Amino acid sequence: MHEAPREIEELIDLMAKLPGLGPRSARRAVLYLIRKRGILLHPLADAMHAVAATARECVVCGNVTTSEICEICSSEKRATGELCVVEDVADLWAMERAGVFKGRYHVLGGTLSALDAVGPEELRIPKLVQRVADEGISEVILALNATIDGQTTAHYIAEELDGRCDVTSLAQGVPIGGELDYLDDGTITAAMKARKAL
Amino acid sequence: MHEAPREIEELIDLMAKLPGLGPRSARRAVLYLIRKRGILLHPLADAMHAVAATARECVVCGNVTTSEICEICSSEKRATGELCVVEDVADLWAMERAGVFKGRYHVLGGTLSALDAVGPEELRIPKLVQRVADEGISEVILALNATIDGQTTAHYIAEELDGRCDVTSLAQGVPIGGELDYLDDGTITAAMKARKAL
Ligand SMILES: [Zn+2]
Ligand SMILES: [Zn+2]
Repeated sequence: MHEAPREIEELIDLMAKLPGLGPRSARRAVLYLIRKRGILLHPLADAMHAVAATARECVVCGNVTTSEICEICSSEKRATGELCVVEDVADLWAMERAGVFKGRYHVLGGTLSALDAVGPEELRIPKLVQRVADEGISEVILALNATIDGQTTAHYIAEELDGRCDVTSLAQGVPIGGELDYLDDGTITAAMKARKAL
Repeated sequence: MHEAPREIEELIDLMAKLPGLGPRSARRAVLYLIRKRGILLHPLADAMHAVAATARECVVCGNVTTSEICEICSSEKRATGELCVVEDVADLWAMERAGVFKGRYHVLGGTLSALDAVGPEELRIPKLVQRVADEGISEVILALNATIDGQTTAHYIAEELDGRCDVTSLAQGVPIGGELDYLDDGTITAAMKARKAL
């Protein structure tokens, strides 16, 4: 494109790299930002700098945080002894929105995938096994997506933890092929309450 | 939401205000930005600050520019005597991508709308009439969206300019109810070549 000045082209190109935005929606978004310069463009740039400067991974669970240990891991109100395992932070947020789980989390950072050559070492599975021992965990609840890779990962973890703690899995209500982050809170709550031993 | 730290919640809330992004896609985009901090989040924040500091409206045509007069208005390669009238800058960019028009533009900034109480004074219609006289324009090409408001605006402008210059309109190829920015370049080119007097 050479329709717009260089600074604006650069912003459009960067915006088009965001998931869910293509070139056309990036152009629309940038023109909208220019029109809303004071109330949106300046605040958004500032908010991005703030997040870039502060966001980090919780050293315990892998959640996104602005301190060394996230709010959930450091809260005394959260139950100890139960860990909910999720694929990514978006799924952790979805669980929190449902509000049904009061324990702590463990974010894997993906799923096992032969195709993408993702093995247990690329995920936080060794760290999970270590936490189960160190924190005296009695139940690990697998809240993984109902995809093939998600279920492969669930079975792998269940075997790794066999004999060390109970391993349960979200069950009723999660549709085949469904992803947690797309589900309504009620479905997640139902799946949580009907969790079953693997 | 209280799932994420304050800085991250604020960024999600701002991102969700962009056209085409809702809360869920804003959350996904922010997690993606955090993962791509170095190559995307920092550059995007910088690009936003750069655009916020430099973007302005061309005083002649209403295009987005970083100088007082836009590149098109100040280019000696662009034909004088012909003005292409568009509703907004996205439409100007769509015309430029098609590459079929070598004259200059006039950006109205919207369409007449009884419902939204947008009259000629809210748009750049008086300025258009003035340009036609000042610049010795022989043809005004109306490249407005094929919507009811777009066509109402086209007829209003044609009446305002009656006797002052030729007024033509993109015709063949623009589908009823269609918006320019959604069309492929070929359709715009065909419509330009088959333009007809109003
Ligand atoms: Zn944590
Ligand atoms: Zn201009």
